[in-house]
Amino acid sequence: MTATTEFNLINKYFNYDDAREDVALGVGDDCALLMPSPGKQLAVTVDTLVAGVHFPETTLPEDIAYKSLAVSLSDLAAMGAEPAWATLALTLPHGRKGWLQAFSTSFKETLQTYGVQLVGGDTTQGPLSVTVQLTGFVDAGKAMRRDTAKPKDKIYVTGHLGDAALGLKILNVRDQPDAMIKSTCIKKLNRPVPRVEFAQRVTAYCSCAIDISDGLVADLGHILKASACGARIYYDQLPASKAFRKAPVYFNNLDYEEMLLAGGDDYELCLVTAEENEMALFSLAESMGILLTHIGEIDTSAELNVINTSGEPIKLNVSGYEHFTDE
Amino acid sequence: MTATTEFNLINKYFNYDDAREDVALGVGDDCALLMPSPGKQLAVTVDTLVAGVHFPETTLPEDIAYKSLAVSLSDLAAMGAEPAWATLALTLPHGRKGWLQAFSTSFKETLQTYGVQLVGGDTTQGPLSVTVQLTGFVDAGKAMRRDTAKPKDKIYVTGHLGDAALGLKILNVRDQPDAMIKSTCIKKLNRPVPRVEFAQRVTAYCSCAIDISDGLVADLGHILKASACGARIYYDQLPASKAFRKAPVYFNNLDYEEMLLAGGDDYELCLVTAEENEMALFSLAESMGILLTHIGEIDTSAELNVINTSGEPIKLNVSGYEHFTDE
Repeated sequence: MTATTEFNLINKYFNYDDAREDVALGVGDDCALLMPSPGKQLAVTVDTLVAGVHFPETTLPEDIAYKSLAVSLSDLAAMGAEPAWATLALTLPHGRKGWLQAFSTSFKETLQTYGVQLVGGDTTQGPLSVTVQLTGFVDAGKAMRRDTAKPKDKIYVTGHLGDAALGLKILNVRDQPDAMIKSTCIKKLNRPVPRVEFAQRVTAYCSCAIDISDGLVADLGHILKASACGARIYYDQLPASKAFRKAPVYFNNLDYEEMLLAGGDDYELCLVTAEENEMALFSLAESMGILLTHIGEIDTSAELNVINTSGEPIKLNVSGYEHFTDE
Repeated sequence: MTATTEFNLINKYFNYDDAREDVALGVGDDCALLMPSPGKQLAVTVDTLVAGVHFPETTLPEDIAYKSLAVSLSDLAAMGAEPAWATLALTLPHGRKGWLQAFSTSFKETLQTYGVQLVGGDTTQGPLSVTVQLTGFVDAGKAMRRDTAKPKDKIYVTGHLGDAALGLKILNVRDQPDAMIKSTCIKKLNRPVPRVEFAQRVTAYCSCAIDISDGLVADLGHILKASACGARIYYDQLPASKAFRKAPVYFNNLDYEEMLLAGGDDYELCLVTAEENEMALFSLAESMGILLTHIGEIDTSAELNVINTSGEPIKLNVSGYEHFTDE
């Protein structure tokens, strides 16, 4: 019942010998010492994943490690920032030696993929939860924000929507009828790919973005609230994967409309920019092999309207998932 | 079972309207945007406090809020850094409206006391735990580290040792026999004062320090290991408060030697520097009204020896508290 720096565990499992030139002192002292790039702003984000809340208890340690970084990398992507440094606060039950090794190996691999160095951490005993803070760099004034959308701007999303939500629904189905559906959707759930590289380049054509972690309606809603405007999106233009479109044949009791509009965990980007940037935007996406879809427009209404093929509004009985709505 | 930014809770309870000039964008977007001071290094620390592990379940929310910042402020103090920005990852059970308000108010007051701005956060549902990351500034090359102790250097500590450990032991004693003991020790447990201001000034005379969070033996041990040397400390010189010295009259079944040598949670500083700096060190401490005590010397042995009044070594059957020693 006292505070502890858990010196041994951090040194044993998380001292990776990495050496970014801007890290003067890494894991192992009271603080890390870091040297920011002159003229850059720092973009900082923190996210906690709790077992049984953000991921099923059965999730593999290597997937938890990957995802705990991916969700924060996606926040950096939403600002167009270049990832640099991470800290890890890991709370876990006793006796998890194998778990720790698997977590540590995957965490290291993921850090290396994105050029990020772990510079500090804390491990404590308790119910499993993982908090990652990431810091990245962005040129002053270049960060994409939520409060810069304007009426007539067009709305785009990267990749496909709804796959992670579908993956969570079918995760525990014993006999998977279709290998492609399973593989696509469960991979999207456990190993979402944050749009880090694309995001840094897209800041040239876009000043407004958010990543889709809570579902399109909730996250686009954050942009509309911060920018004090409304939007219309076209349901039939929302990008669904082949797997997602094929799934109703096998899983006919699921609400696909809800998954597409409000399914969380996809970690795609929702971008908002003036129409004049459209060609440059599509050209950049195409050059990087990233699917980009126009899904709607910002307007002067105070609402988010979803329109069907015949131009009629679809009544939304969905919203983003939020805890504590009773607080 | 999906990730969420918990937008409402953070905005409702933790949007404090503070405005440091180096915060371009605070709470409420995917990332905060921060502007580091040119020529300064960043000192970064992260600590998690888990209910039932780091504080008793009965601890008041205002004390948890204070202490979650104090332990990280103490890490910044151990480097001599000037506090600047905080992030908060708060996991808590459902239905804690009153708890949240009390936590938030105390957290804000503590931030303001130290001139720190909360720039980001994440709230999730789950067993109570608080992770705070603090970032501060330090002039390049001026940070106090663990790996710079040299033989013949003298060892000092600020304030008193053992009070927080004693506070934890007597916390649940129903009839407190002595109001001064209770007030001193429980205050030290719940409201330790990080040596932030003193630490920044002491960097002029000292390049080696650690804060005492896990107990003197464990924390001085970290310095000895990092600096590859040994030390002797004089048991009779260890600074004990009046309350601590009076306590054995009433609580005669406690191990006072262990509390003094290995009690955690005091958040005093252990400083190591060459003898030639002693006068400047004491003069600075005195001018700031801070108790400073010489407790020993660094030597070329490979161990930490504790010496009694007759010059005999005391056998240590204590060490700092560490979880996971079985991992």
